[in-house]
Amino acid sequence: LPFGVLFPRASRILWGKPARILASLFGAVILLGTGLLLLPVAQQTQVSPVEALFTATSALCVAGLSITDPAHDWSFFGQLVILGLIQVGGIGIMTLASLLGMVVIRRFGLRMQLSVQSEQRTLNVGGTREVVWRIAATSVICEAVLALLLIPRMWLGHGLPLPEAVYSGVFHSVSAFNNAGLSLYPDSLTRFAGDPLVLVPIMAATVLGGLGFPVLLELRKHLRTPRRWSLHTKMTVWTSLLLFVGGMVVVTALEWGNPATLGPLPWPHKLLDGAFHGVMPRSGGFNVVPVDAMESHTLLVTIMLMFVGGGSAGTAGGIKVSTFAVIWLVVWAEIRGHPQVHAFGRRLSAGAIRQALSLTFLSMTVIALATVYLTAVSPFSSQEVLFDVVSAFGVVGLSTGVAAGLPQHGQVLLVILMFAGRLGPITFASALALRERTRRYDLPEGRPVIG
Amino acid sequence: LPFGVLFPRASRILWGKPARILASLFGAVILLGTGLLLLPVAQQTQVSPVEALFTATSALCVAGLSITDPAHDWSFFGQLVILGLIQVGGIGIMTLASLLGMVVIRRFGLRMQLSVQSEQRTLNVGGTREVVWRIAATSVICEAVLALLLIPRMWLGHGLPLPEAVYSGVFHSVSAFNNAGLSLYPDSLTRFAGDPLVLVPIMAATVLGGLGFPVLLELRKHLRTPRRWSLHTKMTVWTSLLLFVGGMVVVTALEWGNPATLGPLPWPHKLLDGAFHGVMPRSGGFNVVPVDAMESHTLLVTIMLMFVGGGSAGTAGGIKVSTFAVIWLVVWAEIRGHPQVHAFGRRLSAGAIRQALSLTFLSMTVIALATVYLTAVSPFSSQEVLFDVVSAFGVVGLSTGVAAGLPQHGQVLLVILMFAGRLGPITFASALALRERTRRYDLPEGRPVIG
Ligand SMILES: [K+]
Ligand SMILES: [K+]
Repeated sequence: LPFGVLFPRASRILWGKPARILASLFGAVILLGTGLLLLPVAQQTQVSPVEALFTATSALCVAGLSITDPAHDWSFFGQLVILGLIQVGGIGIMTLASLLGMVVIRRFGLRMQLSVQSEQRTLNVGGTREVVWRIAATSVICEAVLALLLIPRMWLGHGLPLPEAVYSGVFHSVSAFNNAGLSLYPDSLTRFAGDPLVLVPIMAATVLGGLGFPVLLELRKHLRTPRRWSLHTKMTVWTSLLLFVGGMVVVTALEWGNPATLGPLPWPHKLLDGAFHGVMPRSGGFNVVPVDAMESHTLLVTIMLMFVGGGSAGTAGGIKVSTFAVIWLVVWAEIRGHPQVHAFGRRLSAGAIRQALSLTFLSMTVIALATVYLTAVSPFSSQEVLFDVVSAFGVVGLSTGVAAGLPQHGQVLLVILMFAGRLGPITFASALALRERTRRYDLPEGRPVIG
Repeated sequence: LPFGVLFPRASRILWGKPARILASLFGAVILLGTGLLLLPVAQQTQVSPVEALFTATSALCVAGLSITDPAHDWSFFGQLVILGLIQVGGIGIMTLASLLGMVVIRRFGLRMQLSVQSEQRTLNVGGTREVVWRIAATSVICEAVLALLLIPRMWLGHGLPLPEAVYSGVFHSVSAFNNAGLSLYPDSLTRFAGDPLVLVPIMAATVLGGLGFPVLLELRKHLRTPRRWSLHTKMTVWTSLLLFVGGMVVVTALEWGNPATLGPLPWPHKLLDGAFHGVMPRSGGFNVVPVDAMESHTLLVTIMLMFVGGGSAGTAGGIKVSTFAVIWLVVWAEIRGHPQVHAFGRRLSAGAIRQALSLTFLSMTVIALATVYLTAVSPFSSQEVLFDVVSAFGVVGLSTGVAAGLPQHGQVLLVILMFAGRLGPITFASALALRERTRRYDLPEGRPVIG
């Protein structure tokens, strides 16, 4: 590693213990999945090693990008491998991120006795085994409820034979709650467009899975007493609500007259499908209208929503809503001239602010470099490339068709982006938080002219 | 103002005294310039009021975007009005930003006795009159030297008649030092492509004008003793150097084989013209190859360079190199696990960090909203629109042709963007700095999960 040679200290921190453990675990399972998908029994058509690697990564990182046609290229066994990877990836990332969050919060608890009690409550649910058990139970229950809603509707409403309805219902339930966005159909959920009995449960499961396990846990305990929520839960819930409602309204409005998407539909269908596409960028990844037919300006808004992503320690990706909220709270405090950044009766620590800024700018840099590179080596427009790069890094799964059309080394770059986007924000921020030292005023203060 | 009604406190700060004074001054001169340009004696062809407003704003804000053909649409008198607006705008923005910077630094001087001495030295050059006088003298001397280099070359090397060479030399000298980028020729400086005796002096003047007056002043005093430079000068000089060299290398490399730009040229011309286009995004605005023929990925890099812009309290635009440097110093300190952000033996104040973050994100938001809107109302691709929006907000003046092709209300939006991009960062950051209060620990600290 040249980076490690040049900057040994920095790379030790970037590649600290939690990062190494998570990356090794995910890397091993991806290789295992790739191997299984390369077995002849998993394939219906000849699938290349890069396609198998891409599919395994996309499934385990619950990224949802696809360069194969699931029903056509993979056998039933291959599809089960994909389903298994989604389930393992979803539970895995929730578990590991929650455990990492507990370590961070416990470490801070030693320093901030007075203030940390409500924060500790967020994640302090017992030992490792109990966390894994609770997450697995939550996942299975939510997925089962969703499947029980989808199966009858797919059977009776959409004319699927019962066994196929059961299989499709289970597959899409797992894919939805884990925010994977992988579908059995090449056009994703387009065939269910306009059907609230399919789309609303899927949206609900996507939102729940994307909030993150700590928030889910707290909501279950204190759903009716928002005053008792921790700072993290308050920030996640209110910012998510704002982004969901904003996304629904803006996407629906911008696509309202597009003849290739919502234009020809009756207005209740416009509202439903528009709302669906306001929710899916964060980071569900299903679509019911063709993404590449959406207006250029709608895609720009979608890119921003995908970049923000969902809640921490959940199956969603992106820089996370809490990071986004911290940044805007800083901006708002500055505009109002406040010397401190307040949120819900707490003062945000300077460390949290610096970490939010660092994570956001490093993510932007990764996305910018990848976009410049892939624009240079592909025939696609920079907006199309940016869309799929943000979709990969934000583990969303929506695509304008770039992923499937890239040369092989470009697809490998997307694999790296999905991997980095899945594990990077979690491990980077927690590595920073664990390394945060107490404040020493060593050098005299200086202030350059800003602006 | 609905914003003012909704958020009286915030709008009072955003629209505080310095902002009001600068906006009133610039607004009045723009209206005066528009009026002069609307006189029949200023025009050779019929020019619309929006075209006159756009040209006056572009000249006074030294933005350089053009929707008219200067030599064809404006009379000699009209061109003199434009030249006058550039000169007034350049000296005006340097003076007002420097005075504002002095107020900020003096205010901080009262609080930070120990550390601020070297910072105060940066701008403490005496009273208002002396600042104005020094800036005007610096401008005129630099412009005169540049004109004396350009005129003989244009006369003897490019076959212009002597009076025309004098006029062209003076016009482009003023336009270059003030980072305006407005040219007498519809294809900017394309006719001088490959001529180092024209392009190198223009690049040098652009770089000098873009460093900002405080830095120029300190460089003149302590050019050979970089150890004595203030923090602001060190950050500006080294970051500028990095961005100039990086921009030159990347732009030259990416355009090396483009048959519509550098491709057919001999390699010394490639190097010169490539270097020119590495410098001009920050925020010179001249071009020697057609901007709209550049590779999509080169334009992406150019957009990033335009967003950063040049030095504070100078004629360049953008969020400024010091802001950019502060952000990356924060990121770098976080990666290395340092509890404080250090730069050149100083600790960056938390206020400067929050202001850099706020300015950057507000600028990104303005650019994103304008890009989404103009993409929706125009036939251009989102990358073309983004390019011209960043060029307007960063007062650069490079264009892919969007500015000239927009509907009139879109051009008015660009006028607003040039105005906001010229005055916004300066007044926003200084308003924040003046309002910065001392640190009080009022609420218990809280920390959401980041990432
Ligand atoms: K996804
Ligand atoms: K300019």
